[in-house]
Amino acid sequence: MAKQLSHVDATGAARMVDVSAKEPSARRAVASGVLRTTSAVVDLLGSDGLAKGDALATARIAGIMAAKRTSELVPLCHPVPLSNIAVDFELGVAEVRITATARTTDRTGVEMEALTAVSIAGLTLHDMVKAVDPAASLDQVRVERKEGGKTGLWVRPD
Amino acid sequence: MAKQLSHVDATGAARMVDVSAKEPSARRAVASGVLRTTSAVVDLLGSDGLAKGDALATARIAGIMAAKRTSELVPLCHPVPLSNIAVDFELGVAEVRITATARTTDRTGVEMEALTAVSIAGLTLHDMVKAVDPAASLDQVRVERKEGGKTGLWVRPD
Amino acid sequence: MAKQLSHVDATGAARMVDVSAKEPSARRAVASGVLRTTSAVVDLLGSDGLAKGDALATARIAGIMAAKRTSELVPLCHPVPLSNIAVDFELGVAEVRITATARTTDRTGVEMEALTAVSIAGLTLHDMVKAVDPAASLDQVRVERKEGGKTGLWVRPD
Amino acid sequence: MAKQLSHVDATGAARMVDVSAKEPSARRAVASGVLRTTSAVVDLLGSDGLAKGDALATARIAGIMAAKRTSELVPLCHPVPLSNIAVDFELGVAEVRITATARTTDRTGVEMEALTAVSIAGLTLHDMVKAVDPAASLDQVRVERKEGGKTGLWVRPD
Amino acid sequence: MAKQLSHVDATGAARMVDVSAKEPSARRAVASGVLRTTSAVVDLLGSDGLAKGDALATARIAGIMAAKRTSELVPLCHPVPLSNIAVDFELGVAEVRITATARTTDRTGVEMEALTAVSIAGLTLHDMVKAVDPAASLDQVRVERKEGGKTGLWVRPD
Amino acid sequence: MAKQLSHVDATGAARMVDVSAKEPSARRAVASGVLRTTSAVVDLLGSDGLAKGDALATARIAGIMAAKRTSELVPLCHPVPLSNIAVDFELGVAEVRITATARTTDRTGVEMEALTAVSIAGLTLHDMVKAVDPAASLDQVRVERKEGGKTGLWVRPD
Repeated sequence: MAKQLSHVDATGAARMVDVSAKEPSARRAVASGVLRTTSAVVDLLGSDGLAKGDALATARIAGIMAAKRTSELVPLCHPVPLSNIAVDFELGVAEVRITATARTTDRTGVEMEALTAVSIAGLTLHDMVKAVDPAASLDQVRVERKEGGKTGLWVRPD
Repeated sequence: MAKQLSHVDATGAARMVDVSAKEPSARRAVASGVLRTTSAVVDLLGSDGLAKGDALATARIAGIMAAKRTSELVPLCHPVPLSNIAVDFELGVAEVRITATARTTDRTGVEMEALTAVSIAGLTLHDMVKAVDPAASLDQVRVERKEGGKTGLWVRPD
Repeated sequence: MAKQLSHVDATGAARMVDVSAKEPSARRAVASGVLRTTSAVVDLLGSDGLAKGDALATARIAGIMAAKRTSELVPLCHPVPLSNIAVDFELGVAEVRITATARTTDRTGVEMEALTAVSIAGLTLHDMVKAVDPAASLDQVRVERKEGGKTGLWVRPD
Repeated sequence: MAKQLSHVDATGAARMVDVSAKEPSARRAVASGVLRTTSAVVDLLGSDGLAKGDALATARIAGIMAAKRTSELVPLCHPVPLSNIAVDFELGVAEVRITATARTTDRTGVEMEALTAVSIAGLTLHDMVKAVDPAASLDQVRVERKEGGKTGLWVRPD
Repeated sequence: MAKQLSHVDATGAARMVDVSAKEPSARRAVASGVLRTTSAVVDLLGSDGLAKGDALATARIAGIMAAKRTSELVPLCHPVPLSNIAVDFELGVAEVRITATARTTDRTGVEMEALTAVSIAGLTLHDMVKAVDPAASLDQVRVERKEGGKTGLWVRPD
Repeated sequence: MAKQLSHVDATGAARMVDVSAKEPSARRAVASGVLRTTSAVVDLLGSDGLAKGDALATARIAGIMAAKRTSELVPLCHPVPLSNIAVDFELGVAEVRITATARTTDRTGVEMEALTAVSIAGLTLHDMVKAVDPAASLDQVRVERKEGGKTGLWVRPD
């Protein structure tokens, strides 16, 4: 692991990492998160693995669209042309698990795109359930796995 | 508490809540979240309450800018002219606590703006620390307090 | 009806209409359009008035989100804080009728917001059906009705 | 022609098409549309093939700029780096014909970019003429021709 | 004049100014700038006060559209609903003078909107003339006059 | 040097330059500008080469983020995937010198990205100092150097 922040130079100034010298390669990243809410809210969102109405679709679309705009939101991210971004939900007893998978062929990884998809999908669920459960919480937004590039495969340790 | 999702109609279709009939009033919302990382990362970000370099400033600016674009990111949010958005950080032993406060005078609340600021500030920290700590996790993104409007004060229960 | 284009001055230069002197008032506009496609495509989108899968939800969300960004897309439009934007679909034999209703309380009307919602919802349907029907056509994107402001009610003549 | 919607998976969930495995190739798409209005409006826009003032230029710029943002507007579109986008107008007796041509070298086609240019150019004309002709209608927004990629040439049948 | 930066707090952290307690009032700001280029370039742009082709229209539209997005570009600016933004050009011997006028009725001034319009109109001219004059320079981007709000009228001293 | 504007066709219509036939190559551009203000303002921004608080960081982040959105702001610019964008400041007696360096591997140059970074960093400084020095002026926004592509190296003549 690096000992210095890659995005701050020796004088402390914020900087983007220069990827000019890197070769494009296939990249893939998976991120996840959990919206903790109530069982009543989960019942409103779906049952038996079936979504009720458009709520989950709305969150999925929000996550996909936000992933494409990651470099507008996260200041030091490079613009990356995503070849795919998928967002999935799994309904638990009193929580919704969100998983996003991003792919590209580029000079830099796509874990930030996957994390952005999870976060904005989670915020969209927050928005839709807040009148029923203002205390909902988005937790464990994190990278599960990344592949490709010079550093190769990284899998989240248990 | 409501028994139905406010953002889905009787047929299940996604809908924005119509706030045409509401009067503008002063609103304020506070949201928070925690980036869980390592003590080594926290040392790189600052010490003795003092930021080292631009890393925290970068996350703060990202959070402020994202809050202003909440309605572009969260599909069923109304555009809200923020009169203020502030983002603060508190460094713990192996975590960074993020707090955002949003204010407006409008027909709808600003908890989504505060939550968006926290999330994108958190993602920006994720981005800056990922080379040192790829396992970092953004947790407990949630509303702490909201004031104003017809529903009045709501404070997160302990 | 005006005899000159409101958005071009005496020298021919493009201009935004100055609405500084107008008072905010409640406004509402309805626009519609039709995606002409095949009956096979309509069957894939839904039946018996029920949507199949997320396709219509995706187009609805796209229309709602685009309406909020109308002033970024249409150069001489004023930014308008929408209090509501709704997008609905009606499945015909070989066509999908799209209707959008926009509301605000502001100095200017919202027909462009309603038209933008219809257009982008229509383009999103175009995108989703293009592998099955590359010849689909978005037709009759137009204002049906507008209310409010100094000019008052306008209803499309039959 | 496909028998299923490419943008909905087996469970009905919206999805972007994964283009990771495709090779970049030269692509070109032409789309068109028609703003139906009055002969008086057409006279205000130009005559003898010459534009009067900035109205057509404004619509052209709007179309060009919107095409570059297609993937922000249409949820399941991939970001595509356009190598060119051109928007042209032809004045008829009581209508304006809009044509857009998009080019790229990428893993996916650019018909959505061409359609977006036509639609937003058309909406911009709508905006500029609405005080004179509130009943204007944007019609026949459709793909005329696409080239490149695995499916090769497609030309709209007469 | 203030002795401290309004956008940095006592700890040095960036902050937006909280305008919650201010009353909306009519505001107006004028900004200007100069693109210094060659007389050959000015001849390509226009003569006798008449624009040749769409170049000036393109820069005008770019300035108007950017002004509406000022709060997305300048991190600590409040979103302001412009009631008008106008951009004008005056051709000199070897320079183009750019003037922008912004208006709103809001809690904060619009000089940043006027400055943004001038800057982006200037950059657009830069872009269009760069193949002919790569050495062009955008100079004197500054506020000429601002009116309204608590501080009232400010006019640039000669 | 060219004798015609590259962005206007024979009929005077605005056009993007078609770069379809160009090969991607490494490109680099440096641009600079100067915010002229007062020595009191410079003292508030920093001293001894050290920034005080977040003001310069805020301007740096604004410049970096704007550079990534150049093609949204400047109508006829191509979208370019930046591999790096850096923004630096040098404090003078009564001025702040801004320098931006942009890099890509693409079919077109990145001088507009560098100029956009300088301009928006400059506007952000304008915004932060305007309460102390409303008369500040952004000057000499221009290209210093560009490398790569068919035209090769261009260095600003003294």
